[in-house]
Amino acid sequence: MTAKGFFISFEGIDGSGKSTQARLLAEHLRAKGREVVLTREPGGSPGAEEIRALVLQGDPDRWSARTEILLFTAARRDHLERTIQPALDAGKVVICDRFADSTRMYQGLSRGDLRGIVDDLHRLMIGIEPDLTILIDMDPGEGLSRALSRNGVEERFEDFGEELQQAMRKGFLDLAAEFPARFVTIDGARAVEAVAADVARIVDDRIAG
Amino acid sequence: MTAKGFFISFEGIDGSGKSTQARLLAEHLRAKGREVVLTREPGGSPGAEEIRALVLQGDPDRWSARTEILLFTAARRDHLERTIQPALDAGKVVICDRFADSTRMYQGLSRGDLRGIVDDLHRLMIGIEPDLTILIDMDPGEGLSRALSRNGVEERFEDFGEELQQAMRKGFLDLAAEFPARFVTIDGARAVEAVAADVARIVDDRIAG
Repeated sequence: MTAKGFFISFEGIDGSGKSTQARLLAEHLRAKGREVVLTREPGGSPGAEEIRALVLQGDPDRWSARTEILLFTAARRDHLERTIQPALDAGKVVICDRFADSTRMYQGLSRGDLRGIVDDLHRLMIGIEPDLTILIDMDPGEGLSRALSRNGVEERFEDFGEELQQAMRKGFLDLAAEFPARFVTIDGARAVEAVAADVARIVDDRIAG
Repeated sequence: MTAKGFFISFEGIDGSGKSTQARLLAEHLRAKGREVVLTREPGGSPGAEEIRALVLQGDPDRWSARTEILLFTAARRDHLERTIQPALDAGKVVICDRFADSTRMYQGLSRGDLRGIVDDLHRLMIGIEPDLTILIDMDPGEGLSRALSRNGVEERFEDFGEELQQAMRKGFLDLAAEFPARFVTIDGARAVEAVAADVARIVDDRIAG
Protein backbone atom coordinates (compact mmCIF):
# COMPACT_ATOMS: atom_id res chain seq x y z
CA MET A 1 0.00 0.00 0.00
CA THR A 2 1.38 3.37 -1.01
CA ALA A 3 1.64 6.09 1.61
CA LYS A 4 -0.69 8.99 0.95
CA GLY A 5 0.99 12.20 -0.16
CA PHE A 6 0.83 15.08 2.32
CA PHE A 7 1.31 18.77 1.55
CA ILE A 8 2.73 21.05 4.27
CA SER A 9 3.46 24.76 3.91
CA PHE A 10 5.38 27.03 6.27
CA GLU A 11 4.35 30.66 6.55
CA GLY A 12 5.41 33.65 8.60
CA ILE A 13 7.12 37.02 8.43
CA ASP A 14 10.73 37.34 7.32
CA GLY A 15 13.14 36.26 10.01
CA SER A 16 10.59 34.03 11.74
CA GLY A 17 12.79 30.99 11.21
CA LYS A 18 10.33 29.13 8.94
CA SER A 19 13.00 28.11 6.41
CA THR A 20 15.09 26.52 9.18
CA GLN A 21 12.00 24.80 10.57
CA ALA A 22 11.04 23.49 7.13
CA ARG A 23 14.51 21.96 6.77
CA LEU A 24 14.45 20.44 10.26
CA LEU A 25 11.02 18.93 9.62
CA ALA A 26 12.30 17.37 6.40
CA GLU A 27 15.19 15.81 8.31
CA HIS A 28 12.81 14.53 10.99
CA LEU A 29 10.48 12.89 8.49
CA ARG A 30 13.31 11.39 6.44
CA ALA A 31 14.77 9.89 9.62
CA LYS A 32 11.38 8.20 10.09
CA GLY A 33 11.59 6.75 6.57
CA ARG A 34 9.24 9.10 4.71
CA GLU A 35 10.15 10.37 1.28
CA VAL A 36 10.20 14.16 1.46
CA VAL A 37 10.40 16.89 -1.15
CA LEU A 38 11.58 20.15 0.44
CA THR A 39 10.80 23.11 -1.76
CA ARG A 40 10.12 26.83 -1.60
CA GLU A 41 8.26 29.70 -3.19
CA PRO A 42 8.63 31.76 -5.21
CA GLY A 43 10.53 29.14 -7.18
CA GLY A 44 10.65 25.40 -6.57
CA SER A 45 10.95 24.20 -10.19
CA PRO A 46 13.38 25.24 -12.93
CA GLY A 47 10.79 27.37 -14.74
CA ALA A 48 9.46 28.89 -11.54
CA GLU A 49 13.00 29.79 -10.45
CA GLU A 50 13.46 31.69 -13.70
CA ILE A 51 10.22 33.58 -13.08
CA ARG A 52 11.31 34.21 -9.47
CA ALA A 53 14.56 35.77 -10.72
CA LEU A 54 12.60 37.92 -13.18
CA VAL A 55 10.31 39.20 -10.41
CA LEU A 56 12.76 39.73 -7.57
CA GLN A 57 15.76 41.27 -9.28
CA GLY A 58 15.96 44.85 -10.48
CA ASP A 59 14.03 47.97 -9.55
CA PRO A 60 11.29 47.24 -6.96
CA ASP A 61 8.85 49.26 -9.08
CA ARG A 62 9.60 47.48 -12.33
CA TRP A 63 6.42 45.41 -12.00
CA SER A 64 3.02 46.66 -10.87
CA ALA A 65 1.27 44.77 -8.10
CA ARG A 66 -1.10 43.10 -10.57
CA THR A 67 1.68 42.03 -12.95
CA GLU A 68 3.64 40.68 -10.00
CA ILE A 69 0.64 38.63 -8.84
CA LEU A 70 0.31 37.15 -12.34
CA LEU A 71 4.01 36.27 -12.47
CA PHE A 72 3.90 34.66 -9.03
CA THR A 73 0.80 32.71 -10.06
CA ALA A 74 2.58 31.52 -13.23
CA ALA A 75 5.54 30.42 -11.12
CA ARG A 76 3.21 28.65 -8.68
CA ARG A 77 1.42 26.87 -11.52
CA ASP A 78 4.74 25.58 -12.86
CA HIS A 79 5.90 24.60 -9.38
CA LEU A 80 2.62 22.78 -8.76
CA GLU A 81 2.70 20.85 -12.05
CA ARG A 82 6.40 19.99 -12.11
CA THR A 83 7.28 19.51 -8.43
CA ILE A 84 4.39 19.44 -5.95
CA GLN A 85 1.69 17.39 -7.68
CA PRO A 86 4.02 14.64 -8.99
CA ALA A 87 5.50 14.23 -5.50
CA LEU A 88 2.06 14.03 -3.87
CA ASP A 89 0.93 11.54 -6.51
CA ALA A 90 3.97 9.41 -5.63
CA GLY A 91 2.98 9.39 -1.96
CA LYS A 92 5.68 11.76 -0.78
CA VAL A 93 5.49 14.51 1.82
CA VAL A 94 5.90 17.94 0.24
CA ILE A 95 7.23 20.68 2.53
CA CYS A 96 7.01 24.14 0.98
CA ASP A 97 8.64 27.26 2.42
CA ARG A 98 5.82 29.76 1.61
CA PHE A 99 2.85 29.01 -0.64
CA ALA A 100 -0.30 30.89 -1.64
CA ASP A 101 -0.83 32.40 1.82
CA SER A 102 2.31 34.50 1.32
CA THR A 103 0.82 35.91 -1.88
CA ARG A 104 -2.44 36.59 -0.02
CA MET A 105 -0.38 38.59 2.50
CA TYR A 106 2.42 40.24 0.58
CA GLN A 107 0.68 40.99 -2.70
CA GLY A 108 -2.84 40.98 -1.30
CA LEU A 109 -2.11 43.41 1.54
CA SER A 110 1.12 45.30 1.12
CA ARG A 111 0.57 46.93 -2.26
CA GLY A 112 -3.08 47.86 -1.98
CA ASP A 113 -6.14 45.74 -1.26
CA LEU A 114 -5.75 43.06 -3.91
CA ARG A 115 -6.78 40.08 -1.79
CA GLY A 116 -9.87 39.51 -3.93
CA ILE A 117 -7.80 39.33 -7.11
CA VAL A 118 -5.28 37.01 -5.47
CA ASP A 119 -8.09 34.69 -4.36
CA ASP A 120 -9.84 34.74 -7.74
CA LEU A 121 -6.58 33.91 -9.53
CA HIS A 122 -5.81 31.14 -7.08
CA ARG A 123 -9.22 29.54 -7.56
CA LEU A 124 -8.96 29.79 -11.34
CA MET A 125 -5.35 28.69 -11.91
CA ILE A 126 -4.07 26.81 -8.84
CA GLY A 127 -6.95 25.33 -6.85
CA ILE A 128 -4.98 23.27 -4.34
CA GLU A 129 -4.36 24.25 -0.68
CA PRO A 130 -1.88 22.58 1.70
CA ASP A 131 -3.17 19.81 3.95
CA LEU A 132 -1.40 21.61 6.80
CA THR A 133 -0.03 25.15 7.07
CA ILE A 134 2.37 25.87 9.92
CA LEU A 135 2.51 29.55 10.83
CA ILE A 136 5.68 30.41 12.73
CA ASP A 137 4.50 33.44 14.68
CA MET A 138 6.98 35.95 16.05
CA ASP A 139 7.16 39.56 17.17
CA PRO A 140 8.31 41.56 14.12
CA GLY A 141 11.04 43.36 16.10
CA GLU A 142 12.74 40.07 16.69
CA GLY A 143 11.97 38.73 13.20
CA LEU A 144 13.33 41.86 11.56
CA SER A 145 16.63 41.80 13.41
CA ARG A 146 17.03 38.16 12.35
CA ALA A 147 16.19 38.96 8.73
CA LEU A 148 18.51 41.96 8.52
CA SER A 149 21.39 39.92 9.89
CA ARG A 150 21.26 37.98 6.63
CA ASN A 151 22.20 39.62 3.36
CA GLY A 152 21.05 38.75 -0.12
CA VAL A 153 20.22 40.06 -3.54
CA GLU A 154 16.53 39.42 -2.96
CA GLU A 155 16.11 41.72 -0.02
CA ARG A 156 13.30 43.85 -1.37
CA PHE A 157 10.60 41.90 0.45
CA GLU A 158 12.49 42.36 3.68
CA ASP A 159 13.14 46.04 3.14
CA PHE A 160 9.86 47.17 4.61
CA GLY A 161 10.48 48.06 8.24
CA GLU A 162 8.68 47.13 11.39
CA GLU A 163 5.31 48.78 10.83
CA LEU A 164 4.58 46.73 7.73
CA GLN A 165 5.90 43.60 9.40
CA GLN A 166 3.43 44.24 12.23
CA ALA A 167 0.65 44.39 9.63
CA MET A 168 1.95 41.19 8.03
CA ARG A 169 2.05 39.39 11.38
CA LYS A 170 -1.55 40.40 12.02
CA GLY A 171 -2.46 39.38 8.47
CA PHE A 172 -1.03 35.90 8.92
CA LEU A 173 -2.82 35.49 12.26
CA ASP A 174 -6.06 36.59 10.57
CA LEU A 175 -5.48 34.00 7.82
CA ALA A 176 -4.94 31.33 10.45
CA ALA A 177 -8.29 32.29 11.95
CA GLU A 178 -9.90 32.24 8.49
CA PHE A 179 -8.68 28.70 7.72
CA PRO A 180 -8.60 26.96 11.12
CA ALA A 181 -8.80 23.46 9.63
CA ARG A 182 -5.41 23.62 7.96
CA PHE A 183 -3.52 26.30 9.97
CA VAL A 184 -1.53 25.62 13.13
CA THR A 185 0.18 28.62 14.75
CA ILE A 186 3.42 28.03 16.64
CA ASP A 187 5.29 30.50 18.86
CA GLY A 188 8.58 31.05 17.02
CA ALA A 189 10.23 33.22 19.69
CA ARG A 190 11.85 30.27 21.39
CA ALA A 191 14.90 28.07 20.90
CA VAL A 192 15.03 26.48 17.43
CA GLU A 193 14.93 22.98 18.97
CA ALA A 194 11.80 23.74 21.00
CA VAL A 195 9.98 25.06 17.94
CA ALA A 196 11.15 22.06 15.88
CA ALA A 197 9.87 19.64 18.51
CA ASP A 198 6.41 21.26 18.38
CA VAL A 199 6.39 21.12 14.58
CA ALA A 200 7.44 17.46 14.53
CA ARG A 201 4.74 16.47 17.05
CA ILE A 202 2.00 18.27 15.13
CA VAL A 203 3.02 16.79 11.79
CA ASP A 204 3.43 13.27 13.19
CA ASP A 205 -0.11 13.49 14.58
CA ARG A 206 -1.57 14.69 11.27
CA ILE A 207 0.24 12.20 9.07
CA ALA A 208 -0.52 9.28 11.34
CA GLY A 209 -4.16 10.31 11.60
CA MET B 1 -9.22 69.98 -27.39
CA THR B 2 -7.23 66.79 -27.10
CA ALA B 3 -7.79 64.07 -29.67
CA LYS B 4 -9.38 60.95 -28.20
CA GLY B 5 -7.08 57.93 -27.97
CA PHE B 6 -7.97 55.03 -30.25
CA PHE B 7 -6.87 51.41 -29.83
CA ILE B 8 -6.47 49.21 -32.94
CA SER B 9 -5.31 45.60 -32.97
CA PHE B 10 -4.29 43.49 -35.96
CA GLU B 11 -5.00 39.77 -35.89
CA GLY B 12 -4.57 36.86 -38.25
CA ILE B 13 -2.63 33.67 -38.84
CA ASP B 14 1.14 33.70 -39.27
CA GLY B 15 2.15 34.98 -42.68
CA SER B 16 -1.07 36.91 -43.19
CA GLY B 17 0.84 40.16 -43.52
CA LYS B 18 -0.66 41.81 -40.43
CA SER B 19 2.69 43.14 -39.17
CA THR B 20 3.32 44.85 -42.50
CA GLN B 21 -0.20 46.26 -42.49
CA ALA B 22 0.20 47.53 -38.92
CA ARG B 23 3.34 49.38 -39.95
CA LEU B 24 1.76 50.83 -43.09
CA LEU B 25 -1.25 52.02 -41.10
CA ALA B 26 1.07 53.76 -38.62
CA GLU B 27 2.77 55.55 -41.51
CA HIS B 28 -0.60 56.54 -42.99
CA LEU B 29 -1.86 58.02 -39.72
CA ARG B 30 1.40 59.81 -38.96
CA ALA B 31 1.30 61.37 -42.42
CA LYS B 32 -2.12 62.74 -41.44
CA GLY B 33 -0.66 64.25 -38.28
CA ARG B 34 -1.82 61.74 -35.68
CA GLU B 35 0.51 60.60 -32.94
CA VAL B 36 0.82 56.83 -33.21
CA VAL B 37 2.32 54.17 -30.96
CA LEU B 38 3.06 51.02 -32.96
CA THR B 39 3.52 48.03 -30.69
CA ARG B 40 3.16 44.25 -30.65
CA GLU B 41 2.37 41.25 -28.50
CA PRO B 42 3.71 39.28 -26.86
CA GLY B 43 5.99 42.09 -25.76
CA GLY B 44 5.51 45.82 -26.28
CA SER B 45 7.13 47.10 -23.07
CA PRO B 46 10.54 46.35 -21.55
CA GLY B 47 9.10 44.03 -18.89
CA ALA B 48 6.75 42.31 -21.33
CA GLU B 49 9.62 41.74 -23.76
CA GLU B 50 11.53 39.95 -21.00
CA ILE B 51 8.50 37.75 -20.32
CA ARG B 52 8.10 37.15 -24.08
CA ALA B 53 11.71 35.92 -24.26
CA LEU B 54 11.12 33.64 -21.27
CA VAL B 55 8.04 32.11 -22.92
CA LEU B 56 9.20 31.76 -26.50
CA GLN B 57 12.77 30.52 -26.17
CA GLY B 58 13.77 27.00 -25.21
CA ASP B 59 11.92 23.69 -25.34
CA PRO B 60 8.33 24.12 -26.62
CA ASP B 61 7.13 21.92 -23.73
CA ARG B 62 8.92 23.84 -21.01
CA TRP B 63 5.70 25.60 -20.01
CA SER B 64 2.27 24.00 -19.71
CA ALA B 65 -0.62 25.67 -21.52
CA ARG B 66 -1.94 27.16 -18.27
CA THR B 67 1.45 28.53 -17.18
CA GLU B 68 1.93 29.99 -20.64
CA ILE B 69 -1.45 31.74 -20.47
CA LEU B 70 -0.49 33.25 -17.10
CA LEU B 71 2.84 34.47 -18.45
CA PHE B 72 1.21 36.00 -21.52
CA THR B 73 -1.38 37.67 -19.30
CA ALA B 74 1.40 39.07 -17.07
CA ALA B 75 3.16 40.41 -20.18
CA ARG B 76 -0.12 41.92 -21.43
CA ARG B 77 -0.79 43.58 -18.08
CA ASP B 78 2.66 45.18 -18.16
CA HIS B 79 2.23 46.21 -21.79
CA LEU B 80 -1.18 47.71 -21.01
CA GLU B 81 0.04 49.68 -17.98
CA ARG B 82 3.36 50.90 -19.38
CA THR B 83 2.63 51.38 -23.10
CA ILE B 84 -1.00 51.15 -24.21
CA GLN B 85 -2.96 52.97 -21.50
CA PRO B 86 -0.56 55.95 -21.16
CA ALA B 87 -0.65 56.44 -24.94
CA LEU B 88 -4.46 56.27 -25.06
CA ASP B 89 -4.67 58.70 -22.13
CA ALA B 90 -2.45 61.10 -24.11
CA GLY B 91 -4.83 60.95 -27.07
CA LYS B 92 -2.61 58.83 -29.29
CA VAL B 93 -3.58 56.03 -31.67
CA VAL B 94 -2.24 52.68 -30.46
CA ILE B 95 -1.70 50.04 -33.15
CA CYS B 96 -0.96 46.61 -31.70
CA ASP B 97 0.24 43.62 -33.74
CA ARG B 98 -1.75 40.90 -31.93
CA PHE B 99 -3.63 41.39 -28.66
CA ALA B 100 -5.93 39.24 -26.52
CA ASP B 101 -7.66 37.62 -29.52
CA SER B 102 -4.40 35.85 -30.37
CA THR B 103 -4.34 34.35 -26.87
CA ARG B 104 -7.99 33.33 -27.29
CA MET B 105 -6.95 31.51 -30.45
CA TYR B 106 -3.47 30.14 -29.86
CA GLN B 107 -3.66 29.29 -26.18
CA GLY B 108 -7.42 28.94 -26.03
CA LEU B 109 -7.66 26.55 -28.98
CA SER B 110 -4.38 24.96 -29.93
CA ARG B 111 -3.38 23.35 -26.63
CA GLY B 112 -6.73 22.08 -25.45
CA ASP B 113 -10.00 23.88 -24.85
CA LEU B 114 -8.85 26.65 -22.52
CA ARG B 115 -10.91 29.47 -23.99
CA GLY B 116 -12.93 29.76 -20.77
CA ILE B 117 -9.78 30.21 -18.68
CA VAL B 118 -8.36 32.73 -21.15
CA ASP B 119 -11.59 34.75 -20.99
CA ASP B 120 -11.82 34.60 -17.19
CA LEU B 121 -8.20 35.77 -16.85
CA HIS B 122 -8.76 38.56 -19.35
CA ARG B 123 -11.82 39.84 -17.51
CA LEU B 124 -10.04 39.68 -14.16
CA MET B 125 -6.63 41.12 -15.05
CA ILE B 126 -6.86 43.06 -18.34
CA GLY B 127 -10.42 44.24 -18.97
CA ILE B 128 -9.82 46.43 -22.02
CA GLU B 129 -10.64 45.44 -25.63
CA PRO B 130 -9.48 47.31 -28.77
CA ASP B 131 -11.81 49.90 -30.26
CA LEU B 132 -11.18 48.23 -33.61
CA THR B 133 -9.72 44.84 -34.49
CA ILE B 134 -8.60 44.29 -38.07
CA LEU B 135 -8.51 40.63 -39.05
CA ILE B 136 -6.29 40.03 -42.07
CA ASP B 137 -7.86 36.87 -43.44
CA MET B 138 -5.92 34.58 -45.75
CA ASP B 139 -5.84 30.98 -46.91
CA PRO B 140 -3.39 29.17 -44.63
CA GLY B 141 -1.52 27.60 -47.54
CA GLU B 142 -0.49 31.03 -48.70
CA GLY B 143 0.08 32.33 -45.19
CA LEU B 144 2.26 29.37 -44.27
CA SER B 145 4.52 29.71 -47.28
CA ARG B 146 4.96 33.39 -46.42
CA ALA B 147 5.73 32.57 -42.78
CA LEU B 148 8.20 29.80 -43.58
CA SER B 149 10.09 32.07 -45.94
CA ARG B 150 11.11 34.04 -42.85
CA ASN B 151 13.43 32.52 -40.28
CA GLY B 152 13.71 33.38 -36.63
CA VAL B 153 14.46 32.02 -33.20
CA GLU B 154 10.81 32.31 -32.23
CA GLU B 155 9.45 29.91 -34.79
CA ARG B 156 7.59 27.59 -32.44
CA PHE B 157 4.26 29.29 -33.00
CA GLU B 158 4.71 28.92 -36.71
CA ASP B 159 5.85 25.32 -36.56
CA PHE B 160 2.36 23.88 -36.64
CA GLY B 161 1.56 22.97 -40.22
CA GLU B 162 -1.42 23.69 -42.37
CA GLU B 163 -4.13 21.74 -40.55
CA LEU B 164 -3.75 23.76 -37.38
CA GLN B 165 -3.51 26.98 -39.38
CA GLN B 166 -6.84 26.05 -41.00
CA ALA B 167 -8.32 25.69 -37.51
CA MET B 168 -6.79 29.02 -36.50
CA ARG B 169 -8.21 30.75 -39.56
CA LYS B 170 -11.66 29.41 -38.74
CA GLY B 171 -11.17 30.40 -35.11
CA PHE B 172 -10.36 34.00 -36.02
CA LEU B 173 -13.37 34.17 -38.34
CA ASP B 174 -15.54 32.81 -35.52
CA LEU B 175 -14.15 35.48 -33.18
CA ALA B 176 -14.97 38.15 -35.75
CA ALA B 177 -18.55 36.86 -35.79
CA GLU B 178 -18.63 36.81 -31.97
CA PHE B 179 -17.53 40.46 -31.67
CA PRO B 180 -19.00 42.15 -34.78
CA ALA B 181 -18.90 45.65 -33.27
CA ARG B 182 -15.12 45.83 -33.10
CA PHE B 183 -13.96 43.31 -35.77
CA VAL B 184 -13.46 44.11 -39.43
CA THR B 185 -12.29 41.27 -41.67
CA ILE B 186 -10.14 42.12 -44.68
CA ASP B 187 -9.08 39.82 -47.52
CA GLY B 188 -5.29 39.60 -47.16
CA ALA B 189 -4.67 37.55 -50.31
CA ARG B 190 -4.16 40.63 -52.46
CA ALA B 191 -1.38 43.11 -53.17
CA VAL B 192 -0.03 44.75 -50.03
CA GLU B 193 -1.05 48.20 -51.31
CA ALA B 194 -4.64 47.12 -51.94
CA VAL B 195 -4.98 45.69 -48.45
CA ALA B 196 -3.35 48.80 -46.95
CA ALA B 197 -5.81 51.06 -48.80
CA ASP B 198 -8.75 49.12 -47.33
CA VAL B 199 -7.25 49.31 -43.84
CA ALA B 200 -6.64 53.07 -44.12
CA ARG B 201 -10.18 53.74 -45.33
CA ILE B 202 -11.75 51.72 -42.52
CA VAL B 203 -9.60 53.36 -39.83
CA ASP B 204 -10.13 56.87 -41.20
CA ASP B 205 -13.90 56.30 -41.05
CA ARG B 206 -13.78 55.02 -37.46
CA ILE B 207 -11.48 57.69 -36.10
CA ALA B 208 -13.36 60.50 -37.81
CA GLY B 209 -16.68 59.10 -36.59
